[in-house]
Amino acid sequence: MKIQIKSTQTIDDLEYKGLKIIQDKESFRFGIDSILIADFAKQIKPDSKVLDLGTGSGIIATLLCKKTKLKQIIGIEIQEEIAQIAKQSIELNKLQDKFQIINNDIKNIPEILQPQTFDAIVTNPPYKKKQTGLTNQNKKQLISRHETTATLEDFIKISNKMLKDHGNLYMVHRPERLVDIIETLRQNKLEPKTIKLIYPNKEKEPNLILIKATKNAKPFLKIEKPLYIYNKNGTYTSEILKIYGRDKQ
Amino acid sequence: MKIQIKSTQTIDDLEYKGLKIIQDKESFRFGIDSILIADFAKQIKPDSKVLDLGTGSGIIATLLCKKTKLKQIIGIEIQEEIAQIAKQSIELNKLQDKFQIINNDIKNIPEILQPQTFDAIVTNPPYKKKQTGLTNQNKKQLISRHETTATLEDFIKISNKMLKDHGNLYMVHRPERLVDIIETLRQNKLEPKTIKLIYPNKEKEPNLILIKATKNAKPFLKIEKPLYIYNKNGTYTSEILKIYGRDKQ
Repeated sequence: MKIQIKSTQTIDDLEYKGLKIIQDKESFRFGIDSILIADFAKQIKPDSKVLDLGTGSGIIATLLCKKTKLKQIIGIEIQEEIAQIAKQSIELNKLQDKFQIINNDIKNIPEILQPQTFDAIVTNPPYKKKQTGLTNQNKKQLISRHETTATLEDFIKISNKMLKDHGNLYMVHRPERLVDIIETLRQNKLEPKTIKLIYPNKEKEPNLILIKATKNAKPFLKIEKPLYIYNKNGTYTSEILKIYGRDKQ
Repeated sequence: MKIQIKSTQTIDDLEYKGLKIIQDKESFRFGIDSILIADFAKQIKPDSKVLDLGTGSGIIATLLCKKTKLKQIIGIEIQEEIAQIAKQSIELNKLQDKFQIINNDIKNIPEILQPQTFDAIVTNPPYKKKQTGLTNQNKKQLISRHETTATLEDFIKISNKMLKDHGNLYMVHRPERLVDIIETLRQNKLEPKTIKLIYPNKEKEPNLILIKATKNAKPFLKIEKPLYIYNKNGTYTSEILKIYGRDKQ
């Protein structure tokens, strides 16, 4: 299929089952966090109805269409231009029957879609609090990285509203926010059940966390074995190569 | 010094600065968790006034007397016989000027000692909820391992009462209770600031967590680099040998 892209855009080959993602050069571009959360959420059951809150380029939802047998995934993206690009990627990957985009604020979703009807929610929310850190000058990146239009609490509250009883939320975030995340999940009846820490290598502090929380579940947390990105010599670990689908090459 | 011990007791050499610990054969015997929390808490500042909630054999407090320049440490132990043994260890190690034992329920401490006067608190509380897991038949071990006489919430509430503003709580616990711990700390104005995960080795799930929480501090969590107990070949890692003080032998 021939897709027309703008000069400000790129088509990136995911090197995974033929998938491609269109991205804007000036917007927030996906990183390894999206790849990892998509892999972490691959336990989503067949025929699931899934929501992707703040879908961006659609990278997580696109991967989940191939990694799981989900029935439907709806990506919510507030930025019109980015939502438009995600739609183009859906066409490019021929995922129109499974993956749809809604260009709206996640806070409006409980009025747009039927609450308590989703089996799973995935999200890579903005990591930084509104007033902290260096804010990106570029507005498109600002919304993707900082809690400008929606806070962590918004993402979690909406997840609680949209999930079925015992539905699962899969989230990627930064370790420094773990306390906020755990407290807010509990306050919203989403019980953290699994945490996976991502370490750059075996000697470094973790720089990402993956969390699975289950609506109305009983308390008992499992912290999984660690995931290391790089070997000592700087090459990807075999686990990362496997996630990228390059272990058989 | 000649110390008389009963036939049901042992004197164990810590192989660290000449320290010894008397333990009852039938009571809860200290494990690597006590060694690790004592090492984690060694950042306690000179001249600190410290409380050890549920001191047991006194292992943590004994190590802290040598690892830090603390002024005073008071160990609280509910079981009379165990408190008595801890007192004997204090004499054996000649730590009477620094380390005292109070044989009482931790819940009575805010009435016995002056609240808000401690710079730091260390604790290795019972890990298991009252109704969970196989309860130890032996009553002495039961109290040390299960929340029979005091719950996690009791330990945290009392820590909040006894700590000075910006005083630090150091706790060792199990990963599966991390959500309970974080939520309860926050509810009691003890902000989790540092977490260290202990892994049996580089390929396994963590089985212990070390947490430092600071009273009335601002939110920002640091998850430290991992600590591995064993190398691939089953020997202790160099970090563990260092903690045990055997790296220079």
